[in-house]
Amino acid sequence: MAVGLSELPNLFPIPGIRWGVAKAGIKYPDRHDLALMEIAEGATTAAVYTRNAFCAAPVLVAKHHGEVQSARYLLINSGNANAGTGALGLEAAERSCEAVGVLMGCVKEAVLPFSTGVIGELLPVDKIENALPAARDSLLEDGWWNAAYAIMTTDTVPKGISRRLELSGGVVTITGIAKGSGMIRPDMATMLAYVATDAQVSSDVLQSLLIEASDKSFNAVTVDGDTSTNDACVLVASGKSQVDLSSATGDDYEKFAAAVTDVCQVLAQAMIRDGEGATKFVTIEVGGGQSESECRQVAYTIAHSPLVKTALFASDPNWGRILAAVGRAGIESLDVSKVDIFLGDTCIVREGGRAVEYTEKAGQAVMDQEEILIKVCLSRGAARAIVWTTDLSYDYVKINAEYRS
Amino acid sequence: MAVGLSELPNLFPIPGIRWGVAKAGIKYPDRHDLALMEIAEGATTAAVYTRNAFCAAPVLVAKHHGEVQSARYLLINSGNANAGTGALGLEAAERSCEAVGVLMGCVKEAVLPFSTGVIGELLPVDKIENALPAARDSLLEDGWWNAAYAIMTTDTVPKGISRRLELSGGVVTITGIAKGSGMIRPDMATMLAYVATDAQVSSDVLQSLLIEASDKSFNAVTVDGDTSTNDACVLVASGKSQVDLSSATGDDYEKFAAAVTDVCQVLAQAMIRDGEGATKFVTIEVGGGQSESECRQVAYTIAHSPLVKTALFASDPNWGRILAAVGRAGIESLDVSKVDIFLGDTCIVREGGRAVEYTEKAGQAVMDQEEILIKVCLSRGAARAIVWTTDLSYDYVKINAEYRS
Repeated sequence: MAVGLSELPNLFPIPGIRWGVAKAGIKYPDRHDLALMEIAEGATTAAVYTRNAFCAAPVLVAKHHGEVQSARYLLINSGNANAGTGALGLEAAERSCEAVGVLMGCVKEAVLPFSTGVIGELLPVDKIENALPAARDSLLEDGWWNAAYAIMTTDTVPKGISRRLELSGGVVTITGIAKGSGMIRPDMATMLAYVATDAQVSSDVLQSLLIEASDKSFNAVTVDGDTSTNDACVLVASGKSQVDLSSATGDDYEKFAAAVTDVCQVLAQAMIRDGEGATKFVTIEVGGGQSESECRQVAYTIAHSPLVKTALFASDPNWGRILAAVGRAGIESLDVSKVDIFLGDTCIVREGGRAVEYTEKAGQAVMDQEEILIKVCLSRGAARAIVWTTDLSYDYVKINAEYRS
Repeated sequence: MAVGLSELPNLFPIPGIRWGVAKAGIKYPDRHDLALMEIAEGATTAAVYTRNAFCAAPVLVAKHHGEVQSARYLLINSGNANAGTGALGLEAAERSCEAVGVLMGCVKEAVLPFSTGVIGELLPVDKIENALPAARDSLLEDGWWNAAYAIMTTDTVPKGISRRLELSGGVVTITGIAKGSGMIRPDMATMLAYVATDAQVSSDVLQSLLIEASDKSFNAVTVDGDTSTNDACVLVASGKSQVDLSSATGDDYEKFAAAVTDVCQVLAQAMIRDGEGATKFVTIEVGGGQSESECRQVAYTIAHSPLVKTALFASDPNWGRILAAVGRAGIESLDVSKVDIFLGDTCIVREGGRAVEYTEKAGQAVMDQEEILIKVCLSRGAARAIVWTTDLSYDYVKINAEYRS
């Protein structure tokens, strides 16, 4: 089903980073469902987490550990989200970190836990403890795809991407993996992404870079508008390339930041391409706004409209639904007589009404594609925003209606 | 498919109000698709319209006419929304009013036009003009069900309700009809409701009563969160009962206002029960909020979550999805450790975590019903709000993916 994800790209290892995997049998029998990232000493780590008020136990523990100690290990399980599990859930997350600490010889605070799977069931820590030695024994610099498979839930394909940059100080590599299919789904709780580089970057710079990059990637995609309890994205800089980018200025840094954003965008878009029941990959670009936030508001209103999404599924150039979504987006004093709407390069609405030259045939030609661009111009400013989404198909309903049964 | 709408109730005529219908052949062949309401002189009329910035031509014309003249006729067509049609659409709406004026002997400003159907196609005024004499000839006090059928689009059943009240000044009757199935759908543009009473009510009081009643009814239901370009609700008071309720105070008025609200709620709920692909009728009650608006925000976040809706379709007590929706509703400084959630009378979440006594069996028993109550208590205030919605089924996708093809 995944739209345009037929080939898995080559993933470059990152010196200072190793991945091990194991079959813990948490939910899926005989499948890797546990991944352990080992981070060399001296690396810096940044992380962003879900804004859902009901955040899961591992998110609370990872946030806390990240504040008191440099991360040496990331422990990720699929099959159970350890969310909505109260005090017992916190205890379980702490215990799993402790088990890593005992096995690998570090304090539990140097371990950040991540969980993805069904909400409301207690994490079986014993199974994780039993599987940890196998994860340790399989630690490899070249283990990125292994990890990408291990963290999958309803994903139909693993997601990963690498970039290599020649900077004035030397070559820097960035590699990232992610899981998520039906961004953002609370019960499959849900989006996890791990990106690492061998550049040397101070913690502060790394954190602000990650916030900026996720804003343009993970925070700009939507399948169904639901925000998970477990979302997390981690960016690790091992420093092993000796290329120092902690200045956060200059050409080299700009190139590096652009590449990190690119990696995040490819991963975020891969989740949409593999979105639940997705048959289309849709880019919604809203320009001419007074602010980026009002452009986003319009873009998300279109992206979340079940009517627009079902029309996309049907490859139906039903532009009235897009127009109506723009109209109800809640933009203060919007002058609809200035709004233009395009499907690809085809103008469908000009100055608030059906474009004179528009033909159903032209609209149909765009909608028949697998990758579709919807462009809206509000003509009231210079701001712009892009959001990526997918359609709403029978399979979306099927997957989500049958997931637990 | 409609949930709990198997029997059509008896509709009492309202003295001073007559309905005529005709087959104009606008889109549907050989079906009543034109309705004309005649309002006796001396009646008062109140109306509320869509807040979509792209409002349709008939909405603009009806608003304008309503400001300059007392309404004598409402002209409603199905099969064409006359929305997104620019200046030509406005002209078409004016012309159809003019035709009624010529035929019935009144100025065009005494006619309010309403259209429902596909967006973006020009209204065939000639067909309406040709059909108007037949509509006039069929004018009947007992024509409410005829009209309810004529204004249907994808509705599977017509919607109507009557209430009769004994007040100290005499008996007052209220009758209303509505169309809408897939509230609120821009392309079938969409919700129309007409309520009349023989009470005598001043225009000002009638308007504020309608605003209050729609707030608790039409503005509290959602199928897919899409706001139509054509929504309208009209409340007419013919005064023929001689029962004067213009004081807007006292027991009689309270009873009357409650009955008008009740009529609006039954009609609004009927749209949900007949919602596109609906297999469930769901009441979401959020209490313990600091304000009604934050309670609504939580209720709508649950009601619009595709994940909650697909779980409802699957009769799956997947409470994690409800919990996650509450968490992402954007309520400032929400203390999740105080949140309780109930499915019917079964507590599923207590103080932010799975209720100790909760069993899947108990949750399943509630979800197996056709009518489901989801109750959330935020425990931070005394405000409360109720929203009605339905599930998201294969048929919703089917209806909306195939509507134009």
